[in-house]
Amino acid sequence: MTTSAHSDHLAKVTSLLKSGQAAQVRELIDWLKIPSISTDPEYAKACRDAAQWASDHLGASGFQSSLRETGSKDSPGHPIVLAHAPGAPDYKGPHILFYGHYDVQPADPLELWNSPPFTPKLVDDPSGKDGPPRIIARGAVDDKGQVMMFLSAMRAWKEASGLAAGGVKMTVLLEGEEESGSVHLDSFIDANKAELGACKVCVISDTGMLDRGKPAITYGVRGLAYTEVILHGANQDLHSGMWGGKSPNPISELVKVLAQLWDKDRRITIPGFYDRVRPIAQSERDEWNKLGINPSEALKKIGFPPDANVGESGYSFTEREWARPTAELNGIHGGYTGKGAKTVIPSHASAKVSFRLVADQDPVEITKAFFKWCNDHTPPGCRWELIDHHGGNPATVKTDSPELAAAARAIERACGTRPALIKTGGSIPVAGSLKSKLGLETIFMGFGLDDDRVHSPNEKFELECLRMGTMSHAYLVDELLRM
Amino acid sequence: MTTSAHSDHLAKVTSLLKSGQAAQVRELIDWLKIPSISTDPEYAKACRDAAQWASDHLGASGFQSSLRETGSKDSPGHPIVLAHAPGAPDYKGPHILFYGHYDVQPADPLELWNSPPFTPKLVDDPSGKDGPPRIIARGAVDDKGQVMMFLSAMRAWKEASGLAAGGVKMTVLLEGEEESGSVHLDSFIDANKAELGACKVCVISDTGMLDRGKPAITYGVRGLAYTEVILHGANQDLHSGMWGGKSPNPISELVKVLAQLWDKDRRITIPGFYDRVRPIAQSERDEWNKLGINPSEALKKIGFPPDANVGESGYSFTEREWARPTAELNGIHGGYTGKGAKTVIPSHASAKVSFRLVADQDPVEITKAFFKWCNDHTPPGCRWELIDHHGGNPATVKTDSPELAAAARAIERACGTRPALIKTGGSIPVAGSLKSKLGLETIFMGFGLDDDRVHSPNEKFELECLRMGTMSHAYLVDELLRM
Repeated sequence: MTTSAHSDHLAKVTSLLKSGQAAQVRELIDWLKIPSISTDPEYAKACRDAAQWASDHLGASGFQSSLRETGSKDSPGHPIVLAHAPGAPDYKGPHILFYGHYDVQPADPLELWNSPPFTPKLVDDPSGKDGPPRIIARGAVDDKGQVMMFLSAMRAWKEASGLAAGGVKMTVLLEGEEESGSVHLDSFIDANKAELGACKVCVISDTGMLDRGKPAITYGVRGLAYTEVILHGANQDLHSGMWGGKSPNPISELVKVLAQLWDKDRRITIPGFYDRVRPIAQSERDEWNKLGINPSEALKKIGFPPDANVGESGYSFTEREWARPTAELNGIHGGYTGKGAKTVIPSHASAKVSFRLVADQDPVEITKAFFKWCNDHTPPGCRWELIDHHGGNPATVKTDSPELAAAARAIERACGTRPALIKTGGSIPVAGSLKSKLGLETIFMGFGLDDDRVHSPNEKFELECLRMGTMSHAYLVDELLRM
Repeated sequence: MTTSAHSDHLAKVTSLLKSGQAAQVRELIDWLKIPSISTDPEYAKACRDAAQWASDHLGASGFQSSLRETGSKDSPGHPIVLAHAPGAPDYKGPHILFYGHYDVQPADPLELWNSPPFTPKLVDDPSGKDGPPRIIARGAVDDKGQVMMFLSAMRAWKEASGLAAGGVKMTVLLEGEEESGSVHLDSFIDANKAELGACKVCVISDTGMLDRGKPAITYGVRGLAYTEVILHGANQDLHSGMWGGKSPNPISELVKVLAQLWDKDRRITIPGFYDRVRPIAQSERDEWNKLGINPSEALKKIGFPPDANVGESGYSFTEREWARPTAELNGIHGGYTGKGAKTVIPSHASAKVSFRLVADQDPVEITKAFFKWCNDHTPPGCRWELIDHHGGNPATVKTDSPELAAAARAIERACGTRPALIKTGGSIPVAGSLKSKLGLETIFMGFGLDDDRVHSPNEKFELECLRMGTMSHAYLVDELLRM
């Protein structure tokens, strides 16, 4: 194919995408209506339907696509959509793996949604008086909306060029368990190394921009170690009058232990916790300082005053998210939690304790060190039940690869502005798995916004972000064809 | 009435009670079948039925008894049973107020009951091979079984002497909201001061013995201040990847604040908390040391090893329950508490925090001091919502009154052993109200056992305790007639 043929195709692609945005939104709404909540077995059929929907879309864009089963009888899994575009005979660029996920988080608490989570609401007032035009639904941005950008770009390239992925050699993997721990993904990758191993680089659209109108490429994600700790006391609930002050109260004891996870500088006190943490290079620090991130503005958006800018001593707001590990209590429970008063000392109390990790921390090592720390802090007369809910590796990818440069050029051509190089505090464990199992680097090319309410009620995706992302994926094909 | 007439009556009373125990148990079973759960509005009719049952019983024993309404349209209450025995013309003893309650705790968790909570089960194997003969039901000991001791004694005295309460001047007040905070009791006492104010001393059977076969008079109960604290952070739940380490996590912050409630000696750190605590007299300490209480044995019964004997430094196991205040976390809740993992930082976290108080601490003052302490420890960027669920005054009563001496003699005659003088860590707020509003001292004459599973599944009352208590109440009438 000649460069002029590319140009002709690209012109047609961008024209198709511009004229087709309303149709694209209608398609996305159809997909969002399917409640593909992976963590709840009741929605297994919906997960399969959402997978089939995506597979059909890819099929119609010329991909050889099918649902691939995961799991076993004892551990049932949701299907993975796996699709291939063979690449044009003269394609010389890298074999691309596109990864996304079709499953979504549970929608509860339902009462906080202003419209039903699986009845997508389109707010499309061009005047923007009601706020930026957007789609509101569970999964709007995480990750169906972001996968839709890719699907639409692929559809346009097929229509313009007649070829799947416009002639780029590409494999697509859409997972159905990202929101429930990706429990079957690693074994799927292991079992399909031959089919996946030819890929050279992975593209994932499940991250965010720096801000509205400011696209970004994310080059680092944090890892995760997620645990649950249960502290057991007496073999029965006790009357707090008869027993208060006489023997350990598991809630009070748990609280006293967990409070020691941080020192007064908000550093984590587990021995060895920071041993493998890569220091922040001065050059990175300088680049991040130039990004103009305003902590007070960011905090204000979620209802915090400026003095809520607290975290590990010696690091900035951005550094603490992008380059420093943290320990979080994601849940705590014990005793009576209904209305009013009950004077009980419960037999046990529990907490969900997770750690966000940075390169080169190892979630297995960290969990082990935390459990040892718990055992070293066992309150008198009590015993621990320690549960490992697993997690994922942190990933920091090369910023000087030709593929990342191609992605940056694609975004700049699509959006009219150079993408910032940023990191995120979130975790995308698949990147770590792809790196360790297949040697693949990942380019995170995402178009979400900080206030998209990911995992929360009233999740949204703004149409301008959808547009920028769709165009960027379309230009990425053009950039890959030129390589 | 002559002393020989008393003796004739008493002989008949004891004979009637001995021959009538089976009938007494059948009556108690009838009463226990009525699910008078006061905290749940669904059981309002059952509460009224249980009140009527007791009122009818008292009426048949010669009392002028009726149900008295409490509460208002906005705050509906359960009726109070109020009954009077006029006293024989020649009665010279004190006007007695008998207090008890006919309501019970909720029965949940139902699945932990071995027999249905409102289908009383009589285990009456005289060989004791299945354990001591007992009645198993919600309310078996707390407080229907203990009130039944009094009702049966009154029935026998009426049959033997022809007089209500055998000629003792007596008022009976059976409350229906003891298990749900006694919310209308104080206003009832205020509104009926003329009717109640003539009483001189109150008798309550809602406490325990020192051990099987070791009766006791309780001369001190702890008070209670019950609060709920809610710590608010962001105005929405946050993704722990995006926000972990950047801003306060309400669970972690709450845990760090609450852990500071105690110092390393397990003393409460709220300024002024101990200011009004009466020191333990050396004579009390000596008496308690003679009681032969074995902490390791007590802890073993509830599944604790001996090293669970922890509490405020410098005080013994028994002293910590009977004479020292304590702070307890009765409940804690925040974030995700379902199965598995969710990486949320919630917008708020909460705890139920209660204080058991001793004379002369004031629950209103303590709550105020605790809330000030919370405000002084507000984590950066967060705000408190502080709720007062109220409580009750501690009470320590005189041990040298002629009425207490009479009660002690009655118990010794009924049981063949002198009652121990003990305290309890539980709270019976009515005693504080009667003291402050009417100037009444209270004699706690209870026959429960430590392992009766009060407020828990499989609550029981042993028939030997029922017998001892019934006889003791019968002898108390005789003692009062002699005063």
